[in-house]
Amino acid sequence: METISVGLIGTGFMGKCHALAWNAVRPVFGDCAAIRLAKLADVDARLAAEKADAFGFQASTTNWRDLLDDPQIDVVSVTAPNAFHPEMAIEALKAGKHVWCEKPMAPRFEDALRMRQAARESGHVAALGYNYIQNPMVRQIGRLLSENAIGEVNHVRIEMDEDFMADPAALFYWKSEASSGYGALDDFAVHPLSLIWTLLGRIRSVMADMAMPYAERPLAGGGTRAVETCDIASVLFRLESGASGILAANRSAWGRKGRIAVQIFGSAGSIVFDQERMNELQVYRAGGQPADAGYTTMLAGPAHEPYGQFVPAPGHSLGFNDLKVIECRELLSAIAGKPSRLIDFEKGVEIECAVHAMAESFRKRAWVDVAYG
Amino acid sequence: METISVGLIGTGFMGKCHALAWNAVRPVFGDCAAIRLAKLADVDARLAAEKADAFGFQASTTNWRDLLDDPQIDVVSVTAPNAFHPEMAIEALKAGKHVWCEKPMAPRFEDALRMRQAARESGHVAALGYNYIQNPMVRQIGRLLSENAIGEVNHVRIEMDEDFMADPAALFYWKSEASSGYGALDDFAVHPLSLIWTLLGRIRSVMADMAMPYAERPLAGGGTRAVETCDIASVLFRLESGASGILAANRSAWGRKGRIAVQIFGSAGSIVFDQERMNELQVYRAGGQPADAGYTTMLAGPAHEPYGQFVPAPGHSLGFNDLKVIECRELLSAIAGKPSRLIDFEKGVEIECAVHAMAESFRKRAWVDVAYG
Amino acid sequence: METISVGLIGTGFMGKCHALAWNAVRPVFGDCAAIRLAKLADVDARLAAEKADAFGFQASTTNWRDLLDDPQIDVVSVTAPNAFHPEMAIEALKAGKHVWCEKPMAPRFEDALRMRQAARESGHVAALGYNYIQNPMVRQIGRLLSENAIGEVNHVRIEMDEDFMADPAALFYWKSEASSGYGALDDFAVHPLSLIWTLLGRIRSVMADMAMPYAERPLAGGGTRAVETCDIASVLFRLESGASGILAANRSAWGRKGRIAVQIFGSAGSIVFDQERMNELQVYRAGGQPADAGYTTMLAGPAHEPYGQFVPAPGHSLGFNDLKVIECRELLSAIAGKPSRLIDFEKGVEIECAVHAMAESFRKRAWVDVAYG
Amino acid sequence: METISVGLIGTGFMGKCHALAWNAVRPVFGDCAAIRLAKLADVDARLAAEKADAFGFQASTTNWRDLLDDPQIDVVSVTAPNAFHPEMAIEALKAGKHVWCEKPMAPRFEDALRMRQAARESGHVAALGYNYIQNPMVRQIGRLLSENAIGEVNHVRIEMDEDFMADPAALFYWKSEASSGYGALDDFAVHPLSLIWTLLGRIRSVMADMAMPYAERPLAGGGTRAVETCDIASVLFRLESGASGILAANRSAWGRKGRIAVQIFGSAGSIVFDQERMNELQVYRAGGQPADAGYTTMLAGPAHEPYGQFVPAPGHSLGFNDLKVIECRELLSAIAGKPSRLIDFEKGVEIECAVHAMAESFRKRAWVDVAYG
Repeated sequence: METISVGLIGTGFMGKCHALAWNAVRPVFGDCAAIRLAKLADVDARLAAEKADAFGFQASTTNWRDLLDDPQIDVVSVTAPNAFHPEMAIEALKAGKHVWCEKPMAPRFEDALRMRQAARESGHVAALGYNYIQNPMVRQIGRLLSENAIGEVNHVRIEMDEDFMADPAALFYWKSEASSGYGALDDFAVHPLSLIWTLLGRIRSVMADMAMPYAERPLAGGGTRAVETCDIASVLFRLESGASGILAANRSAWGRKGRIAVQIFGSAGSIVFDQERMNELQVYRAGGQPADAGYTTMLAGPAHEPYGQFVPAPGHSLGFNDLKVIECRELLSAIAGKPSRLIDFEKGVEIECAVHAMAESFRKRAWVDVAYG
Repeated sequence: METISVGLIGTGFMGKCHALAWNAVRPVFGDCAAIRLAKLADVDARLAAEKADAFGFQASTTNWRDLLDDPQIDVVSVTAPNAFHPEMAIEALKAGKHVWCEKPMAPRFEDALRMRQAARESGHVAALGYNYIQNPMVRQIGRLLSENAIGEVNHVRIEMDEDFMADPAALFYWKSEASSGYGALDDFAVHPLSLIWTLLGRIRSVMADMAMPYAERPLAGGGTRAVETCDIASVLFRLESGASGILAANRSAWGRKGRIAVQIFGSAGSIVFDQERMNELQVYRAGGQPADAGYTTMLAGPAHEPYGQFVPAPGHSLGFNDLKVIECRELLSAIAGKPSRLIDFEKGVEIECAVHAMAESFRKRAWVDVAYG
Repeated sequence: METISVGLIGTGFMGKCHALAWNAVRPVFGDCAAIRLAKLADVDARLAAEKADAFGFQASTTNWRDLLDDPQIDVVSVTAPNAFHPEMAIEALKAGKHVWCEKPMAPRFEDALRMRQAARESGHVAALGYNYIQNPMVRQIGRLLSENAIGEVNHVRIEMDEDFMADPAALFYWKSEASSGYGALDDFAVHPLSLIWTLLGRIRSVMADMAMPYAERPLAGGGTRAVETCDIASVLFRLESGASGILAANRSAWGRKGRIAVQIFGSAGSIVFDQERMNELQVYRAGGQPADAGYTTMLAGPAHEPYGQFVPAPGHSLGFNDLKVIECRELLSAIAGKPSRLIDFEKGVEIECAVHAMAESFRKRAWVDVAYG
Repeated sequence: METISVGLIGTGFMGKCHALAWNAVRPVFGDCAAIRLAKLADVDARLAAEKADAFGFQASTTNWRDLLDDPQIDVVSVTAPNAFHPEMAIEALKAGKHVWCEKPMAPRFEDALRMRQAARESGHVAALGYNYIQNPMVRQIGRLLSENAIGEVNHVRIEMDEDFMADPAALFYWKSEASSGYGALDDFAVHPLSLIWTLLGRIRSVMADMAMPYAERPLAGGGTRAVETCDIASVLFRLESGASGILAANRSAWGRKGRIAVQIFGSAGSIVFDQERMNELQVYRAGGQPADAGYTTMLAGPAHEPYGQFVPAPGHSLGFNDLKVIECRELLSAIAGKPSRLIDFEKGVEIECAVHAMAESFRKRAWVDVAYG
């Protein structure tokens, strides 16, 4: 089996998450390419060297373009701040690399389109880091839907809530600046959208409300500054299938730490999931004796691919980082020309289209059909 | 203490529920008026007699107006089908009776207004059967909010779901006819609205979507008939306080039996409740050590008034019917001229205003400000 | 249908609970005898009169023997303190009354035997207030077991925990005196035993440990007094069926309010229940696709008899007091000579036999076979 | 920082788990020694070579003694079947290696004692694979106990249940043979015991019951064979602190997949945990307003060390394999002469002492004091 050489840009939360995945993917799955951790880039030289050493990369650099110039590097993980995604991804694709870029694609929609164009022209794999779709229990939802276990889907609700911006006393920082985007909509809602895209297909039309729980936030040096983004977004939508839905995102939701709550209703049952209990799934199937009806709570196990590659015993729990390992495995499959389960730049742009249509509907206070172009 | 004489119209689900409450209120609370169950009315003579006997009423009649003509009857429970509410309530008020009318007020808005007018003119108590607000845990939410336990409320989500119309093979019946109203909106959403009114104040503006999961339903005699009401309603709203919110109602939600799920987010915490576990409440308070933070699950007990009137031990559970007994107790307080916790015809009309604004926003596909007139 | 005349002794927690049940049973069930609330007895004359008025009794007395002398009274509810149960129950039976006596039967085993003897000789109904067995979800467990839904039962665990004695600063009171019994064993464990008796049959042998979390407790006047009862009991047991089991009871379990947690394991599945969520039941059935296996959470509804007599809609919750209404209904069935679901004095003595065998096994530090005599 | 060279014996469930941990520990923690994966041993040459390649080991062998002969190898992971633990661990220690051995120590108690002796004589680190104690939420329990958050512990209940032997139709295999040990007691109960040892100290006395849910099991070739081990164990115990407790283990518990349910009661609160929801912890603290009291559900996050080394955001979930990475980190700390949180061979023998005392108490049907020698 061949060897894949990897370059990584970034050493933050997602940089480390990618590094852990690149280290684990072969030991976990066994049947994929060998991984060579070639070079790690970070603008901070000391950090680059230190993290290259810790993560097992052979070399480090402060110049991310070095990775592109290295002919032996096959794939580049892009985990730098969002504003850098377009340039890095596009240049990497042009340099003949496969690209694994963290979400969201780009703060500006035009940039997302340029990224997609670069991917199309390159013929290389261009994947986005939508890791939640890799959860074996999310795959199980997909399997149940494809088996028609709950009949025809007619209604969907999906919520994503965390509380890292819930404290009104927290200082103003870049996530409250308009330059960072709309707020919860692009920062958060893209994750639920990745689930919708994977499980239910495209959204046809949207009607969004957005809200600022705190009009201003304190500045470090004293005084306050007006907030420019909306930490709360609430969206009505219709899927192309005709099903109606609600999407809610709130990054100022005290008490919620990693909630992505999904409710899918069909003509013969329903499915309930919450990422905070990512190893559980609840399914209700109509029919049978009324006295015995109820939601069945499934615990993740080897019957839910590819859980068994991590642990052979059911009910022992995968974790957040394991999802990235699965995503990495899918990326390697794509690179090997095999079927894969990924949000690539094509689907990524569709998700961005939906996000921007939501923002437009909020401005216009009217329903907007998503234009997929 | 005086005696209150009661007339009851109707012997169905809610008729029995009222009868149970009238039987229980004095034994439970002790300190209220003695109750005399004077007369029960039902169009079916046999049913009227049989139920009068079972429920402990002294007499029965097939003519509900007999209750109004009886000078000794103080209060009339109206539990007949919704279409009869206006005439019965108005006539009863005109006859000098206090009225305890089941929700919703009336299928047509004009009728609700006439009912309110009659109540105003009568000077009598005119209360609606919004029993969920009587849950001691809902009172506990109110107490927490009034104590500012979660700071200023900035976002609310509330869902009401059942599955009695979830089966596409279920026969067409009156709830699918346009004459019954909009569907989930007036049939269901009024309950969540009663909670909002009680806990958070009035709604300022709304934007609703409504959906039919099944375009047609089978007829008993064969063939099908087009459905005229929407079993699903999804609403964005803003409270007069400025807080944003989402209301969802679905009476075709397989697996949900009595779900009324409330999430209230504030600047210092959040509150989560679900009527399917009506004796529990979850509260998150910001502050303290991060390692020890989390939702606290409170179990209903004597500390939550008036639970202790039913059971002196905590964690022993009240049931649905107990809420009606509490409502009855509040009604007696109102009749006695004391403070009470009720949705009266004034507030009831406000709730109807919100419902009709929602329907209008759906027709117009635009935000609508609720006109409270 | 005939009329049953009722006398009630006691006005405390259980006195009120009986009174509520007597008031509700006919309105709820309709098809049983009419109930006449004849006379209420309490040693406190004021309390007797006041409660008789509130509960709807026609008369009151300070002498419980007045109830026995009244030839019109058919049945006597005995809810006085445990020490009075034997005399009251035996005298009532001798007076030709049916008896509905609160649990436990008596602090002393000989008294329980005398009570049983009196019941046998009287030919009248002699029932104990083991209300938890009346929960429709407990009946559902029984149905599942009888249908062999989880195969042959091979292991059982049952816990009963509350925290009313958890505070070490709580004053010494009668429940810490040896004269009150063993402690958690007779105060608490009898409830789980009533479930075992109803669902699984008799216990063959036992091995108990008992513990005092606090060796002494403060006295009101200052100083402390050594505790004489054990707030914690832990028991290994074998059923007559051969299944092994664990019973745990703790009345000093901080955080537990009304927990009765049941786990029943069989060769083809398992059942999990907790009284704190008394309207839910979890059932796992072996077989089927591993990916779809899991516990199904059933919500109480009309499919679970006799829930539908209280509320026709599922998932709307019964409460603690409703269980007493069902118990009362069963009592009326027994009085009418029909099959009923009750712990009568026969079974009650068996439960006492098990309790005393447990205490003996603790003293001997050895397994003890329960002698049912 | 130095480099640690690793040898691994075994390629099964735990072999892979060790391999994943050795690969991840440095990328996750950064501040520990560099890891060189030197050699992997498995009796099957093809498997050895294949897994060495997948796991990233530089070489493979069919002879585990090769690892001991390699002077560059510092530490040996022993994950071969239990019967081989003594010889491998003892020889490795004698060869001057640190040893990381999977639990349980050995089927025979004498062998466990010899292992401890070898560890004492070697002066090297000799650790056992009790991974559940590494859960950040278990550490949080420890922190709460040490801070006296629930007062003095007076009662404990701990259950470990899985269902891999629940099917009576499953073929007879080595776990049903007496040579494998007692059954649930040594196979399972050691995990709960590791938690007790870590959180609450040593056990003083025990009284066990053991049961066979199925007397015989089918043989592959037809016919049946009598089962020789007990899949169910139930134990009463007293801690050296005086607290009473119950330990239950069942490997034939249909529906349970990875349950380790812990309940710890103290004089000022209680703690509840279940490994099936390993990222959650419930804590009840006495005091405060009764209306607001309840269990607080904590979600694992960076405030719970060392969660933050894996994910900087709370509520994102660690998985089972992450616990082994933490264990590996502790092992490296021990090797570096720093404080560590491990079950070493000293504590391991104590746990074995408790297990064998339990078996003895079952044979004698009497309480047995654990002899720690």
